[in-house]
Amino acid sequence: MSKTFEKKGLTKKSDNISEWYHDVVLRAELAEYSDVKGCMIIRPNGYAIWEKAQAVLDSWFKQGGIQNVYFPIFIPMSMFEKEKEHVEGFSPELAVVTHAGGEELAEPLAVRPTSETVITQKFADWIQSHRDLPMKLNQWCNVVRWEKRTYPFMRTSEFLWQEGHTAHADRVDAAKMVLEALEWYRKFYEEYFAISTYVGLKSRGETFAGADETYSIELVMPDGKALQAATSHYLGEHFAKAFNVQFLDSEGNKQNVHQTSWGFSTRAIGGLVLTHGDDSGLVVPPEVSRIQVVILPVNNKEPETEQKALAVSKEIAGKLNLAGIRVFVDSDFKSSLGQKINKWELQGVPVRFEIGTKERQKEKVHYVRRDNFESNNEEISFGNVVESTKKLLEQIQADLLAKSKLAKETQTAEAENYDDFKEIITNKRSFVRVLWCESVECEAKIKAETKATARVCELKDLNEAIGGKCFACGEKADRHWLFAQSY
Amino acid sequence: MSKTFEKKGLTKKSDNISEWYHDVVLRAELAEYSDVKGCMIIRPNGYAIWEKAQAVLDSWFKQGGIQNVYFPIFIPMSMFEKEKEHVEGFSPELAVVTHAGGEELAEPLAVRPTSETVITQKFADWIQSHRDLPMKLNQWCNVVRWEKRTYPFMRTSEFLWQEGHTAHADRVDAAKMVLEALEWYRKFYEEYFAISTYVGLKSRGETFAGADETYSIELVMPDGKALQAATSHYLGEHFAKAFNVQFLDSEGNKQNVHQTSWGFSTRAIGGLVLTHGDDSGLVVPPEVSRIQVVILPVNNKEPETEQKALAVSKEIAGKLNLAGIRVFVDSDFKSSLGQKINKWELQGVPVRFEIGTKERQKEKVHYVRRDNFESNNEEISFGNVVESTKKLLEQIQADLLAKSKLAKETQTAEAENYDDFKEIITNKRSFVRVLWCESVECEAKIKAETKATARVCELKDLNEAIGGKCFACGEKADRHWLFAQSY
Repeated sequence: MSKTFEKKGLTKKSDNISEWYHDVVLRAELAEYSDVKGCMIIRPNGYAIWEKAQAVLDSWFKQGGIQNVYFPIFIPMSMFEKEKEHVEGFSPELAVVTHAGGEELAEPLAVRPTSETVITQKFADWIQSHRDLPMKLNQWCNVVRWEKRTYPFMRTSEFLWQEGHTAHADRVDAAKMVLEALEWYRKFYEEYFAISTYVGLKSRGETFAGADETYSIELVMPDGKALQAATSHYLGEHFAKAFNVQFLDSEGNKQNVHQTSWGFSTRAIGGLVLTHGDDSGLVVPPEVSRIQVVILPVNNKEPETEQKALAVSKEIAGKLNLAGIRVFVDSDFKSSLGQKINKWELQGVPVRFEIGTKERQKEKVHYVRRDNFESNNEEISFGNVVESTKKLLEQIQADLLAKSKLAKETQTAEAENYDDFKEIITNKRSFVRVLWCESVECEAKIKAETKATARVCELKDLNEAIGGKCFACGEKADRHWLFAQSY
Repeated sequence: MSKTFEKKGLTKKSDNISEWYHDVVLRAELAEYSDVKGCMIIRPNGYAIWEKAQAVLDSWFKQGGIQNVYFPIFIPMSMFEKEKEHVEGFSPELAVVTHAGGEELAEPLAVRPTSETVITQKFADWIQSHRDLPMKLNQWCNVVRWEKRTYPFMRTSEFLWQEGHTAHADRVDAAKMVLEALEWYRKFYEEYFAISTYVGLKSRGETFAGADETYSIELVMPDGKALQAATSHYLGEHFAKAFNVQFLDSEGNKQNVHQTSWGFSTRAIGGLVLTHGDDSGLVVPPEVSRIQVVILPVNNKEPETEQKALAVSKEIAGKLNLAGIRVFVDSDFKSSLGQKINKWELQGVPVRFEIGTKERQKEKVHYVRRDNFESNNEEISFGNVVESTKKLLEQIQADLLAKSKLAKETQTAEAENYDDFKEIITNKRSFVRVLWCESVECEAKIKAETKATARVCELKDLNEAIGGKCFACGEKADRHWLFAQSY
């Protein structure tokens, strides 16, 4: 009875990962398209994952002294234009309100694509002295960036995120904040989403519009493409100068503040789906799964058996629930066992228990791990169900991470020269690690020829000074960088 | 040292409640105006109260089987126009996006003022059979209603809220949901905000655009005006008909779903400020206060005393913290004790501890209750600090509610005739309870003449059938209603 049923109509992941992704997102009821171009409806299964991420990250932010706030969704166009690079970077993507309350507005309002401008403007009011620093704010909100091509979760015209904005007395303190945020993101991906990441500095060409430096978390997707999964920016004094945010230091001198901003969005859910999902649908790591164990009472089409199986299932669910395990008993006897198995596998619930006459007699639960069907036909005795289930969930979480680590390593190649690089980018599903010159022109040429860009210089490689030659242009190159095509 | 310092420049609540409210909101750092007309910045002190409300209500929603989702902020104008009363009610307040991504849009997009339309449209896809019902969704989000006159928290062009949207097989099940949501709101106001409320049905003239019936929570403000503090609507089949949401009942017949929607917004924070605040600033009930106890070590201007007082303060804070009490030690010795007292009183922290040499020697904390300065010069012994503080916080919470109940009762008068009614509405800060005919014309006349409207027919009065005469027009009247001017 542990047979895994074929998901009718679900594209195979290995056949066409893009179609498979759409199928899974829709059929596992994570999200759905709306009538507005590029805007997505996040359904309960998808939103539950987002709530988990919010809860974990928000608690870390609070421990780190970050305070939550809420700034308006509308930004006057004039304010937006104060930081030159920033407005150049974002204006092609803005949605603009021109009418409100039945009248044309004197000044059009941008729907926020990000809030550096409005928050920095308030920093100017709130920060006078070094004693007001650091000031560390965050907001959980929606933002809008009008995209030409959209893709559920990965690239949508409206998305949900958190944006942290902080002001510091000097570069050193700001840099610490940039890395702290980055570490929260890395840790979240690893410990909750069970995804091993690359963490590092972005190239000049990929730096946030208005920032001195951008750091990011990059995920290696199964097709070898990179997903930029969170970013943390050192804004330097750019916005402080544009908005005149100065403070008196302890010696009475006026100084510009040094700012940071950092964000994590619903895009992360797309990364989760692509990383762990398989031909049967979604695979959700236990730590972030709304339901960790689904129990299917098996009735053998007899009402009496049905009641007995249901009673035992509920008893076991009660024990698990008391121990803090999120469990659900599927008592829908109008659907067949096969339909139910299909449904829960599609939704990616980590563990399925099946309890029928045989299990009741043996006083053992028959279980199936969603992440590893090979592990089928395993059993857990009723008496030990809480401890064994806890261990099982921990094991699944650890195994998913190990698998992700292995995939990341397997999908990272080294290239000595441009020909090798092109061969790998074109034919292998892989990141490529190369010694690179870091010039904007060189990156543009590589991108034009291979669609690949520099993803990051890993933190561990940042202080290299190799003094070698660039794999692509032959100029001087000091550090190793990871290149890939990207989502 | 327990002297309460005068708040320089803070308007007295009794002198001018509107000015006092603005002063407190700004100076207690709850919120601030933005550059966009009627849009507000919610600062950490304000947002922390909102987060408390979210956490409590969301846990109740989840226990009630409500699932969180997220729908797009943009609604195509054509969809908005499908429910006639609804669009008539909301179109004067819409903000409209006409351009996005550098181009004029083929169809303008409304920024959501509420989401009945887009959610009902999806109900049509998701609901086929009676087995899909009830469907109970909620979202926490921002909405925009372009207001002519705005007032922080109370009436802003953009605000934060939750909107619950449910579909049911019949009127009875929907009606149960309407009352369940209403009860969550009542309980929240009473148990967390320590505010006694009126709960009941709205008049026809005050019913939500597109609903059959609207129920609401009404607060009696200190100036006798009503604050509509949360609403719950029975939408009947209006939206189901407009969007064709039908299901097959158990006998195979097509039926329209019966819908509800219900919302609670950041406006609640305005009600909290007005209800409990006083001439020294904000008063926040312990249940929702970010900091419940602030400890001020008193240094007598000697560095040695300072260190000793600080050490004892931290020790006590550690104990309270372990017991789950939210405590903060204000170790800012650069500000005077008076400045610090002013600051924390302004921010409404429920309890202040002062610990100096005398307290260390007596091993007793000197404390001051924010809600009742008369209770000054009380002491708690160090050895018993956790238990005593817990009791103290509970007592404050209970006392604030009792005070609110008394105020509500004192500020509710009865009127037999229209002259009495006008006298009360004009000269007394009060709600008026009257026997009323419930006609739209009668209410319009009363409003034109007195600015008062029917607030609610309390749940307990709903099934009256008194057969008396309307206080205003003399026509037949069956039920008692509460009237007041409103925010």
